[in-house]
Amino acid sequence: MQKSLLLIAHGSRREASNEEVRTLSERLRVAADANFHEIGCAFLELAEPSIPDGIEALIGNGAEQVIVLPYFLAAGRHITEDIPAEVAIKQRQHPQISITIAPYLGTAEDIPSLLLSLVK
Amino acid sequence: MQKSLLLIAHGSRREASNEEVRTLSERLRVAADANFHEIGCAFLELAEPSIPDGIEALIGNGAEQVIVLPYFLAAGRHITEDIPAEVAIKQRQHPQISITIAPYLGTAEDIPSLLLSLVK
Repeated sequence: MQKSLLLIAHGSRREASNEEVRTLSERLRVAADANFHEIGCAFLELAEPSIPDGIEALIGNGAEQVIVLPYFLAAGRHITEDIPAEVAIKQRQHPQISITIAPYLGTAEDIPSLLLSLVK
Repeated sequence: MQKSLLLIAHGSRREASNEEVRTLSERLRVAADANFHEIGCAFLELAEPSIPDGIEALIGNGAEQVIVLPYFLAAGRHITEDIPAEVAIKQRQHPQISITIAPYLGTAEDIPSLLLSLVK
């Protein structure tokens, strides 16, 4: 099964912040080695591609499974409502594709040690 | 030298998000073992304590060095201007204390592997 990953960020009026996310998705590609058919990124608002366009692009490139990975620190409305709503629309349009949402970044077990690595 | 750490988050109207940050600062205390005299958290806006109040509390409890650690993913205006401005005011008020700002979370080297741990 061709499995692709879509990193989702909020999006910013500051283009350099959006570029940081695009660069991060390239670093993800390197770190993931060959575990994914493709790794892309998309933005909830203020930047391109949108989440629907990002999902479409992965499916268009052959993904049979899409995992949406939210690059968010807190479980605000974007995590609980907005991203699931956008994903649900795409899931209805592509019933043959498995589209799932991974836990958001802020839930990662190793955040404390990552934070401490910054003060060493 | 008594070194204390202040985790800084943006702050949210959603109190549960602020609680996530307070819980994270407790997890940091556990992960840091005895490397810091004290570990606290503070918020740029919308939640308490404020950054100045958070710094004051650490100094009041005996910190001779304060490291401010921004729990932010992107280098927006908050990182480049707002947090440094608040820290600079406190540094002028306490010239005998070393107050420094650590790199923000989004710069951490291991973010890609942390993200990939969420999709396993």
